[in-house]
Amino acid sequence: MAITFARRMEGLKGSEIRELLKLTEKPEIISFAGGLPAPELFPVEEMKKISTLVLEESGTAALQYTTTEGFPPLREHIADRMNSKNKTNIDKDSILITNGSQQGLDFSGKVFLDEDDVVLCESPSYLGAINAFKAYQPKFVEVPTDNQGMIMEELENIIKTTDRIKMIYVIPDFQNPTGRTWPLERRNKFMEIINKYEIPVIEDNPYGELRFEGENLPSLKSMDKKGLVVFLGSFSKIFCPGYRIGWVCAPEEILSKYIFVKQGADLQASTISQREISKFMDIYDLDEHVDKIKAVYTRRRDLMLKTMKEELPEGLEYTYPEGGLFTWVELPSHLNSKVIMEECIASNVAYVPGGSFFPNGGKENNFRLNYSTMPDEKIVEGIKRLGVVLRKHMEVEAESL
Amino acid sequence: MAITFARRMEGLKGSEIRELLKLTEKPEIISFAGGLPAPELFPVEEMKKISTLVLEESGTAALQYTTTEGFPPLREHIADRMNSKNKTNIDKDSILITNGSQQGLDFSGKVFLDEDDVVLCESPSYLGAINAFKAYQPKFVEVPTDNQGMIMEELENIIKTTDRIKMIYVIPDFQNPTGRTWPLERRNKFMEIINKYEIPVIEDNPYGELRFEGENLPSLKSMDKKGLVVFLGSFSKIFCPGYRIGWVCAPEEILSKYIFVKQGADLQASTISQREISKFMDIYDLDEHVDKIKAVYTRRRDLMLKTMKEELPEGLEYTYPEGGLFTWVELPSHLNSKVIMEECIASNVAYVPGGSFFPNGGKENNFRLNYSTMPDEKIVEGIKRLGVVLRKHMEVEAESL
Repeated sequence: MAITFARRMEGLKGSEIRELLKLTEKPEIISFAGGLPAPELFPVEEMKKISTLVLEESGTAALQYTTTEGFPPLREHIADRMNSKNKTNIDKDSILITNGSQQGLDFSGKVFLDEDDVVLCESPSYLGAINAFKAYQPKFVEVPTDNQGMIMEELENIIKTTDRIKMIYVIPDFQNPTGRTWPLERRNKFMEIINKYEIPVIEDNPYGELRFEGENLPSLKSMDKKGLVVFLGSFSKIFCPGYRIGWVCAPEEILSKYIFVKQGADLQASTISQREISKFMDIYDLDEHVDKIKAVYTRRRDLMLKTMKEELPEGLEYTYPEGGLFTWVELPSHLNSKVIMEECIASNVAYVPGGSFFPNGGKENNFRLNYSTMPDEKIVEGIKRLGVVLRKHMEVEAESL
Repeated sequence: MAITFARRMEGLKGSEIRELLKLTEKPEIISFAGGLPAPELFPVEEMKKISTLVLEESGTAALQYTTTEGFPPLREHIADRMNSKNKTNIDKDSILITNGSQQGLDFSGKVFLDEDDVVLCESPSYLGAINAFKAYQPKFVEVPTDNQGMIMEELENIIKTTDRIKMIYVIPDFQNPTGRTWPLERRNKFMEIINKYEIPVIEDNPYGELRFEGENLPSLKSMDKKGLVVFLGSFSKIFCPGYRIGWVCAPEEILSKYIFVKQGADLQASTISQREISKFMDIYDLDEHVDKIKAVYTRRRDLMLKTMKEELPEGLEYTYPEGGLFTWVELPSHLNSKVIMEECIASNVAYVPGGSFFPNGGKENNFRLNYSTMPDEKIVEGIKRLGVVLRKHMEVEAESL
């Protein structure tokens, strides 16, 4: 005998991308690669007060085990907030607290996927979700998208012609990586199709509250009449990620499976993290905090897009995100963003090459830019550097035509 | 179509036991069922100071994402501590921070187990590990044990005659549920067998530091010459469980797999929890804290065993734990501890029936008692109540013979 790993580990090898991204951590690099929230907005002073208060009021209970489902007052806060922001009509019993919404993704794979089952997702889709699902060895079928998100005619065609579809994974609000949002008609059409074919939906919504303009749209969860939608939420982008607190909101039959999985996976989320966030929501106004975040991100989005217009060469396209953290750039089809990335790093600027966001690969002429992390002056300088590198490639192209 | 869950979910259904244990949460019940550390020993005042200090010193970094591997100074503290307590010779690069050691169990299943692979474990073994592994649909083969833990001749016979063994799961120190500890000769013999057959070992060690008497024995990890042993550690029992911080210590080839799995599972453990524990270890003496815990648990173990001797009927056997949280009671083979448990609950005392600790079932004449959670007077009163119920059953038996 000798060490033999599970077959699933073959799909989870270290990627080139990961190695490339390690290079972006040098301080001289202006990185638009991460998806980090702006740390200067974190409520450090408030949390100093809260952390003392929680230990004063709750004492040892704050340091002890709690239930697998999560700390009940936090689950209540979340249910109330979802009813207000996501137009749902749920109570705390529909909520399981997870370690960020990434854990909700992993659990979704664990609850629904046997090997060779099919997951439908947007093309492109969130890299972290793709990796989480890969551990359960499914097949991915990518549903084509346009500037308004998933194309519903394509979705229905795929459903009609594909066996073993076990779930559909979508990010309808300010998608990662594209920044796109599905309009209401798409949501209605989507739910019509879902209800017709009765397929479980994982609605990933970490950015929904970060809308800079336009009207809030109802979550798919709020339109779910048949108990098919699992909603994943997170405090990482509206509060801070260091607590690793997110949640799953699902119909009872489905949530009970997630709870069993949570029990086996790590018993429960951190008691003290849960109590601190809950206490913050007791005594501070989270809406006010989110407003501050939105003000900064709106300015940075505007600044990035304005600078992109000025500094990037003609012949590429990018999305206009109404919220969230990202814009998505498409280069002419023969260019490879992974190759160009190496030059970018030499010029001390970085993005995430887009290829990894397509679970089945094959598209390399795009990349994701994050505008939430870098201060204004670095946004301008970074986009300028990016412009210089891209211009060179686009000119080579123009010359060779 | 309709909702179809993954096949693994069939094995993760709610158990009778879980339902039974819910009944033990009533305040009038003296419960020896849980495995909770004594909350009155939690360092609440110290953590008030620490939580403020971490936010003052680290500011926003304490609330931001950190690396998947974990906060480097905490990993250093852990490596140092393992080298001192577990006689290993490792550095921080061998450490991955997890959400308690339960997550290390889940990851072990994910890294090593395909469906129908074989896990060897002690008979009985830890219920939470069995459930974590079950999600990966292995077969369990139970290795017989005696009062000194796993019987090594039996282990070698099983290895010789069993295909597809992918890992061996063991708790050599103060085992859950039995409280038994493997003596040095067993450890030596075990490593000899493991090295011969080259089988990965999961050494679960949440209680090792809680030794009340006798000499500390070397961890299997410290005896590992071939890179086969994965050591799981935890702050839950030597500090407090509410932070959900544990760790995996493994050879590089294996640890890299756990790190990929952590990335997909939930990105990283809570930044603030990691920084707070690390800071506690910077400025306080964790050994001193562990000494306080040991003093209380020693007294409670002594009190429980003394009361058991006085109050429980003749004809049953129980272990003498040199550390940890549990003792294990064996009834005459025709008695069923699950049936008796219902009467115990009616008498307001509770234990965990032993059947669930045998992954392949079939043994119901035993139960686990915890002595760490209840205050002294409740230990005495609870064992008295238990004695009344058991005496009735043992007398019925005596009469019917």
